[in-house]
Amino acid sequence: MTRPETTIPDASTPASRLVMKFGGTSMGDLERIRRAARIVAAEVKSGKQVAVVVSAMAGKTNELVAWTDGAGPAAQGLPLSDDEYDVVVASGEQVTAGLLALTLRNMGHNARSWMGWQIPIITDDAHGRARIEDVPGEVLGAAMDLGEIAVIPGFQGVTAGGRITTLGRGGSDTSAVAVAAALECPCDIYTDVDGVYTTDPRIEKKATKLNRVSYEEMLEMASLGAKVLQTRSVELAMAKQVPVRVLSSFVEPDENGNLPVGAGTLICDEEDIVEKRIVSGVTVSRDEARITLLGLADRTDAPADVFTRLAEANVNVDMIVQSQARTAGGVNLTFTTGRRDAVRAEELMTAAKDEIKFEEIRVDADVAKVSVIGVGMRSHAGVAQTMFRALADKGVKFQAISTSEIKISVLIEDAYAELAVRALHSAYGLDAL
Amino acid sequence: MTRPETTIPDASTPASRLVMKFGGTSMGDLERIRRAARIVAAEVKSGKQVAVVVSAMAGKTNELVAWTDGAGPAAQGLPLSDDEYDVVVASGEQVTAGLLALTLRNMGHNARSWMGWQIPIITDDAHGRARIEDVPGEVLGAAMDLGEIAVIPGFQGVTAGGRITTLGRGGSDTSAVAVAAALECPCDIYTDVDGVYTTDPRIEKKATKLNRVSYEEMLEMASLGAKVLQTRSVELAMAKQVPVRVLSSFVEPDENGNLPVGAGTLICDEEDIVEKRIVSGVTVSRDEARITLLGLADRTDAPADVFTRLAEANVNVDMIVQSQARTAGGVNLTFTTGRRDAVRAEELMTAAKDEIKFEEIRVDADVAKVSVIGVGMRSHAGVAQTMFRALADKGVKFQAISTSEIKISVLIEDAYAELAVRALHSAYGLDAL
Repeated sequence: MTRPETTIPDASTPASRLVMKFGGTSMGDLERIRRAARIVAAEVKSGKQVAVVVSAMAGKTNELVAWTDGAGPAAQGLPLSDDEYDVVVASGEQVTAGLLALTLRNMGHNARSWMGWQIPIITDDAHGRARIEDVPGEVLGAAMDLGEIAVIPGFQGVTAGGRITTLGRGGSDTSAVAVAAALECPCDIYTDVDGVYTTDPRIEKKATKLNRVSYEEMLEMASLGAKVLQTRSVELAMAKQVPVRVLSSFVEPDENGNLPVGAGTLICDEEDIVEKRIVSGVTVSRDEARITLLGLADRTDAPADVFTRLAEANVNVDMIVQSQARTAGGVNLTFTTGRRDAVRAEELMTAAKDEIKFEEIRVDADVAKVSVIGVGMRSHAGVAQTMFRALADKGVKFQAISTSEIKISVLIEDAYAELAVRALHSAYGLDAL
Repeated sequence: MTRPETTIPDASTPASRLVMKFGGTSMGDLERIRRAARIVAAEVKSGKQVAVVVSAMAGKTNELVAWTDGAGPAAQGLPLSDDEYDVVVASGEQVTAGLLALTLRNMGHNARSWMGWQIPIITDDAHGRARIEDVPGEVLGAAMDLGEIAVIPGFQGVTAGGRITTLGRGGSDTSAVAVAAALECPCDIYTDVDGVYTTDPRIEKKATKLNRVSYEEMLEMASLGAKVLQTRSVELAMAKQVPVRVLSSFVEPDENGNLPVGAGTLICDEEDIVEKRIVSGVTVSRDEARITLLGLADRTDAPADVFTRLAEANVNVDMIVQSQARTAGGVNLTFTTGRRDAVRAEELMTAAKDEIKFEEIRVDADVAKVSVIGVGMRSHAGVAQTMFRALADKGVKFQAISTSEIKISVLIEDAYAELAVRALHSAYGLDAL
């Protein structure tokens, strides 16, 4: 796929295509839907063919999920499948897609909605967290060639067998990127923030908006606590080379469809970023738990035994630290998981206590993972030292560390999270002037 | 189609099928959905294969319709189609279908939902008021043969071109009968009343429940003001010979799936009713308007001109009276329409005043249509005289009359409606002992 010229803002060519995605806040009521429609109309007026992907009204998905919870789990002996959960929950996006199409028509535009099963957005059959397998762009593209705005409910798809699926929370971002890949065009994600920041502005008011960020960095940021985009949508954008812009739905384009210069954040290839920073962002994730097995039998295969059991139960383990136990004859094994997985991990370990052989298990959810991310790390030494010194200067102790080529994460006591974020933001020169 | 043995209540045979339909009140919240699920489960326990057709939660369709109204009409030059209205409004039944399937699974039953586009329930493309054209029963029946309860959202269908349609308000009754016809089985309609009454019990407390009523009578009753079933559903039941029972969702079957003896009303062939009454019911419709053209040119083709114009605009005319005008040189032409159509009729007539040639138009919505209905009229004389005498005795004047083989309707001043209903209910011997 060639990268369209629209990666350079405002350089639109005739008949170029664009996917625009609006989240639940932007679809919250009829007035907000009209605002989204005006933003779409401005892009259409500037000559673009537009497909719009929408979320459900803010709060609606939670209501629908609560109803499915209230209906209760399937009885024993029946498959615990989420196929009917998906039938219920997918309806929220169907409503906003129809309403946006009606609103666009009211403004004089040709528009029609395309359900997941109509395009179709083919997914696997992992109901409740399905993965998109194929989005044929031909029929959709042909309708757009005839001047029709395509309005597409996000979050939903259909199995090859014709059952409704949903992609998991935040899945509408992934829907939008998948549609953009099918239409071979860029994707603008309209949300309630005006771009991707060097860190969470609610924690550090000196945070600055990034004009560009690479796919790899965005992927790490999304995985490590930045909530602006769903991780899977960034993976897909990177794999399919879809240029993604994150924009605020409170900034409307001018009459030529142009956004203010420098609006939003473009997520693109590393090579398209001229000024590379060593560190682009500092993130914090509070969705962590630390689990320690005290007095684990000092066998070489003991850790393998533990992590095999966890992997087989689909519990993702992030950081791992092994240390000598204070008591004689054993080691302490510490690892971190997501907070939801921690309950299951504790159950698994406790149930297999006699087979694994350990004395005691401790679970601590009072932890936070603070990370620094930047593609510049690949070519710069000393990034880790800066991090450790900055934290030490503020008296922040860390309990575990994990690294990749472009990030370093430390696990710390939760109470120090904001302090650590501010110290690191400053230490890497990210503070706004 | 052969009429199944289940037309005789409680004489179920192994593997006999049944369609059950629950209205919006019965789907109003999770507790009511559980009650409906228990009723379904009792039928399954008694050995029946069950398909369930559901309405949206009470009030939900109104909310969705209000949103589509709020989005506004399409701009001039765009087709004023209700296809996107249907996308929005059909979502209400999708939700309840998924929730009932989940609830049935929670109770240990195999169940799955089938959207209109999955079965498929093929309709024409008259969005917002589509008519069912075909319901293939093979795939649905095969799933039921394997022991699965099929849960089907009422009200919705799909065009041959794959767009979502809805059948118009009350359309879930029609969905249920169409599915029953496809499955060649009877249809039980669960609602908030316990059957079809000789008249509206809110007007005449001596009204009695009918154990059986013929298709023809039910059709007239539904057309003439009885709200228990949608007219189209009765037409379809008659055409396809589907036995329909109207039952209260507040009466639960016993552990063998049997309802109390004499529960509900069976709508069936006239020949299956042993004790025939001359008059089975008295109805009142307040949804009427009387339109009078004063001083219409006394040409023989003038009425034809008027009614052709109305027919071409899809305005249904019910009663017609022509009388000599008091002013010289003209006649007065009075006709009735539904109250909604009256506005359009007035506009049409006023716009064509000079071509039709009349002096003045008057529209009066302060009228009611009271009707007596009974297949016994075919073989009994004197039914009309009884009606006219009963009304005259109470001082009720009538403004127009229309008759068919099995009904007589009179148009009266609205204020007299209840009085007239009670007088007729008594005159035909329908009062409960």
